[in-house]
Amino acid sequence: VCLLDQTKLPLKEKYLECFDYQSIAKAIKEMRIRGAPAIGVAAAFGIALAAQNSTAKTLDEFLVEVREATSVLSRTRPTAVNLFRAINRMINILQTNKNTDVLTLKRLLKKEAEAIAQEEEEMSQRMGEYGATLVRKGANILTHCNAGALATVDLGTALAVIRKAHEQGKKVHVYADETRPLLQGARLTTWELIKEGIPTTLICDNMAGFLMQQGKVDLILVGADRIAANGDVANKIGTYSLAVLAREHQVPFYVVAPTSTIDLAIANGNEIPIEERSATEVTMIAGQRIAPEEVNIYNPAFDITPARYISAIVTDRGIIRPPYTKNLAKILS
Amino acid sequence: VCLLDQTKLPLKEKYLECFDYQSIAKAIKEMRIRGAPAIGVAAAFGIALAAQNSTAKTLDEFLVEVREATSVLSRTRPTAVNLFRAINRMINILQTNKNTDVLTLKRLLKKEAEAIAQEEEEMSQRMGEYGATLVRKGANILTHCNAGALATVDLGTALAVIRKAHEQGKKVHVYADETRPLLQGARLTTWELIKEGIPTTLICDNMAGFLMQQGKVDLILVGADRIAANGDVANKIGTYSLAVLAREHQVPFYVVAPTSTIDLAIANGNEIPIEERSATEVTMIAGQRIAPEEVNIYNPAFDITPARYISAIVTDRGIIRPPYTKNLAKILS
Repeated sequence: VCLLDQTKLPLKEKYLECFDYQSIAKAIKEMRIRGAPAIGVAAAFGIALAAQNSTAKTLDEFLVEVREATSVLSRTRPTAVNLFRAINRMINILQTNKNTDVLTLKRLLKKEAEAIAQEEEEMSQRMGEYGATLVRKGANILTHCNAGALATVDLGTALAVIRKAHEQGKKVHVYADETRPLLQGARLTTWELIKEGIPTTLICDNMAGFLMQQGKVDLILVGADRIAANGDVANKIGTYSLAVLAREHQVPFYVVAPTSTIDLAIANGNEIPIEERSATEVTMIAGQRIAPEEVNIYNPAFDITPARYISAIVTDRGIIRPPYTKNLAKILS
Repeated sequence: VCLLDQTKLPLKEKYLECFDYQSIAKAIKEMRIRGAPAIGVAAAFGIALAAQNSTAKTLDEFLVEVREATSVLSRTRPTAVNLFRAINRMINILQTNKNTDVLTLKRLLKKEAEAIAQEEEEMSQRMGEYGATLVRKGANILTHCNAGALATVDLGTALAVIRKAHEQGKKVHVYADETRPLLQGARLTTWELIKEGIPTTLICDNMAGFLMQQGKVDLILVGADRIAANGDVANKIGTYSLAVLAREHQVPFYVVAPTSTIDLAIANGNEIPIEERSATEVTMIAGQRIAPEEVNIYNPAFDITPARYISAIVTDRGIIRPPYTKNLAKILS
């Protein structure tokens, strides 16, 4: 499995070759690959890899090995639901094919990983098409973190919408939040959009409110890591602040996410586990220390945006409007 | 004139010796010294230095030289009013002592610069005392940028309040926004507070909203670069977003500033010039590039917080509450 190492972008386009599931788990943990849909797909391929690599002679030995891989991969990152959904689909293959042989299972697991990737790709296209209907000509779009190709399989989520609108000749302009601490906006979103020739202006996260005050933002598009049954959204830290600012300035705030990101088992945002990451993500930038060693750090990787701040959720099955509890359940049924 | 080079903190405590007004102007422009009150005082000493260094034989020659210094220093940074106020006080010395000699003027200018510094120091103490009455025991205080000793002459503005509350045994805890792009919160505020033994947690700017959502912030204290007659406040970029978030979460939002920051000649925030700074402040951190070279950058150094978001303005002459137009005029009269 070959991954573009996202920690090295935009300075270097370095590919990471993973020959076992452990290196995929490590790549997810270290955010060399990131973005809810992308880590789901990577984990599925990790499990397929564990299966391929297995030298087990019996079905039982094989199942133990593959289950160990699913267990390690599921402990990499807690917030995005796509990871668990992909792993569960792989486990399902094992369960529904209990009476077959190791070789067949190896083939089926590989096929399922490829199917997950393929589906994410198709969902990306459809989200782009639905979402583009919300974008008027000449719109100034603000986005946060990276909800692009790098976070998914094909076009992205929020960036799929931007790509489609651009393709349709809508002449959009994008403001990209740099997205501290790991700067996915500065490093990844700008890199993707420049490659597409989409006019992009990079800002620091704390400038978004001032932009909105000046009427410079027409709509906001963000991705999601998990959407609860009531429409509450977990997404990259800073999303919630943007949503509050959007409402204050009457700027539409759209979440773009495949249906694989919706988790009806979670009633509301309070139940979504929020990952806290290492202090050095905040205190070190590009290998340089930017704060005194003695200081405490609080570094939540995500936050929760309550459903009431969200104008609509753009999915691969259409645009969902409030009331979300009813409409999310309906679209998934 | 000896300045602590703030661009080197917290890694190095390097002092900058300035032997002429040009190097002081350069230090202000490059933000080696920053903070509204501090740049006012530095400019005053720059003018005193220009006077001391003058080899002019006639009063006319001397006045031309000193006026050239005032002109260069007034073009360093546009937003903070303290700079212009300090320069005007120095010009006033020249105007009200027209009939004296060069030697006397040199002495008077030096004395006036010292008086400005001395007054800022006293105002700092008084702001601290007034402001501390707003802080309850065990409060969690959020602050933005650096409104501390480094930005002023003595205790600071917002940090003067925190220092006083700490001194009074109120056991406060501070959340410091890192404050991109130049990271004054991460580099300077944490450095100051750790030296005082005040418990401090550093966060990225985009985490403040999530903290408030969780009820972890009891009040917000920020400084100011200029306060208009109607109470609108120009302060470091990101202040406005915090103010909106504060109101959404019913967290009191206090601006702490000496009366030298109030500019009654400016009717409202729209008239305050907002400095835009270089793109490299955003794209480079610690000498490392963090974004593609081709991307556009928007880098306003300040924003405007409308008066309606501000719970109170803490000054050296007391705590001002709305209606600000009436109460600011009253306190200055």
